[in-house]
Amino acid sequence: MSSSGVDPQRVGHTAESELLARILPRFRAADAALVGPGDDAAVVRAPDGRFVVTTDLMVHGPDFRMAWSTPFELGWKAAASNLSDVAAMGARPTALVVALAATADLPVEFLEQLADGIREGCAAMAPGCGVVGGDLSVSATLTIAVTAFGDLEGREPVLRSGARAGDVLAIAGSMGRAAEGLDLLFRRGVDADGHPDAEATALLRAEYPDLIRAQTAPRPPIGHGVIASAAGATAMMDVSDGLLLDASRLAAASDVRLDLSSTALEPHGPFALRGGEDHSLLAAFPTQDAVPAGFTVIGQVVPGRGVSLDGTDLDPRGWDPYSSWSGAQG
Amino acid sequence: MSSSGVDPQRVGHTAESELLARILPRFRAADAALVGPGDDAAVVRAPDGRFVVTTDLMVHGPDFRMAWSTPFELGWKAAASNLSDVAAMGARPTALVVALAATADLPVEFLEQLADGIREGCAAMAPGCGVVGGDLSVSATLTIAVTAFGDLEGREPVLRSGARAGDVLAIAGSMGRAAEGLDLLFRRGVDADGHPDAEATALLRAEYPDLIRAQTAPRPPIGHGVIASAAGATAMMDVSDGLLLDASRLAAASDVRLDLSSTALEPHGPFALRGGEDHSLLAAFPTQDAVPAGFTVIGQVVPGRGVSLDGTDLDPRGWDPYSSWSGAQG
Repeated sequence: MSSSGVDPQRVGHTAESELLARILPRFRAADAALVGPGDDAAVVRAPDGRFVVTTDLMVHGPDFRMAWSTPFELGWKAAASNLSDVAAMGARPTALVVALAATADLPVEFLEQLADGIREGCAAMAPGCGVVGGDLSVSATLTIAVTAFGDLEGREPVLRSGARAGDVLAIAGSMGRAAEGLDLLFRRGVDADGHPDAEATALLRAEYPDLIRAQTAPRPPIGHGVIASAAGATAMMDVSDGLLLDASRLAAASDVRLDLSSTALEPHGPFALRGGEDHSLLAAFPTQDAVPAGFTVIGQVVPGRGVSLDGTDLDPRGWDPYSSWSGAQG
Repeated sequence: MSSSGVDPQRVGHTAESELLARILPRFRAADAALVGPGDDAAVVRAPDGRFVVTTDLMVHGPDFRMAWSTPFELGWKAAASNLSDVAAMGARPTALVVALAATADLPVEFLEQLADGIREGCAAMAPGCGVVGGDLSVSATLTIAVTAFGDLEGREPVLRSGARAGDVLAIAGSMGRAAEGLDLLFRRGVDADGHPDAEATALLRAEYPDLIRAQTAPRPPIGHGVIASAAGATAMMDVSDGLLLDASRLAAASDVRLDLSSTALEPHGPFALRGGEDHSLLAAFPTQDAVPAGFTVIGQVVPGRGVSLDGTDLDPRGWDPYSSWSGAQG
């Protein structure tokens, strides 16, 4: 972490109280916090009388490589992936709790920058949302567990199960760009032995800044969750495992068939259908006119099952965290 | 996991959807759940217009050893330690989300039993509380991240900062028994080389069932959080890092001195002051008469700072997850 040659302070040589004193001030208070970090638990406003909650892990190895992502980006992405699940219910994100398991040799500065990334990710994607609590532990494997909350503001949650034949299918956010960035990193962000490499990654970032950032620090359209709900979306979900696999889940939950249009997908490149981690919002709307700005129509909801492209059945396969990890970290 | 010699199914060879299909049915629905597992996020009732939230990690190595705890006990303890933080605010636990990072070679049955432990822990300690969502990932290190929620039912949260000179200090739950069990495990639950050993642990369990269980599957007095709040507790906290260290935190937050009575502590053995993981509830009450059944008076709140025993200053040191882990797992 340090380019000065001075060995930075390590997590394993720092008392928990000192670590908290360095990390907690970097978070911004949530507008909804009544009791923030420092007591046994936080107390968060839920003016709606309900709250939305989701949790998502980021694990060193299957979910990120140190040579490819900065600590700031890891924090940003941990926020983004959780905020997106809140948005997909049609809710406004209000607060996060963050549990970090750090390796003993991790520089304390790494955790500080990770906290900065969470703070800035919230500020950019969900203003007013902040960190209300968390936990710190040591581990042989760096692990980031974020739990995010949202407020429905009186609206009903937008579930995966509400799409009806005749609805229009639309998406807000990128299609396949995060996977295209990851493909670049796997092919060219590596050294001669194929291991993730920071120097090779720096060159890639200069050449493809947007694609690499789509993978390492995505900026999903969090605010469009509330917009879609207010516009009358009948179903919605976060596209994290690839459009095709996630669309097949929405189709199954709604007991409908989703017919995608190749004309709409083609401009988005080779990963548009199967690439994961875009955290776009896939939603169904009752009519074309109901589709709000920021959403692009990509297909139709029709009677039947599964997902098709221009009427031809597709085999839903995407990113599976269990079958896809080789065991490597780097 | 299997005594039949048949190699059980492993997490790394099982699709995420199949794992979820095996694990999710083992959880009990939370009474407060409006939308449970299966969508992008859950929706939970918060009739009070606020919710209490806490998160706690359990990491293989610093927090548990496979030879000492059963998977069921790990789930139970993960529930207990989180429920206790909710109780310490004076809230009634309503729901949990559970994020699991499992090693690829872990038998699926292990996760099933862990889920059973969470379910039974909730049923025993916080009836009506259940799992509303979660996440599954692979990792080189088994990690259990639980986030727990509670409802204040119209009461104000009981903070660490409300104790006043003249209050009576009381505790519900054990003092030092979890640490006494851990001490036994470190000394005698090991093989000739000092590594955690299941056979030695089985013998220990037969000899000291209550002490080992106090460490591996504690049963903190969760319901007493609401009782203390209703009785007018001025301050409360979960004692997880040792009575002395946690009391010093309550003293600092309230800007008072806590004077403990050796007569009250002595019956609880050598770990009563510094042993961690009891998850007892330490609370201050305005008068002796206000102390509810289930709480034992252990001292007085007086003007000043820090913690004393019969008037003599004590040095607050307890369990620090950073300085105390050797790096070993087993």
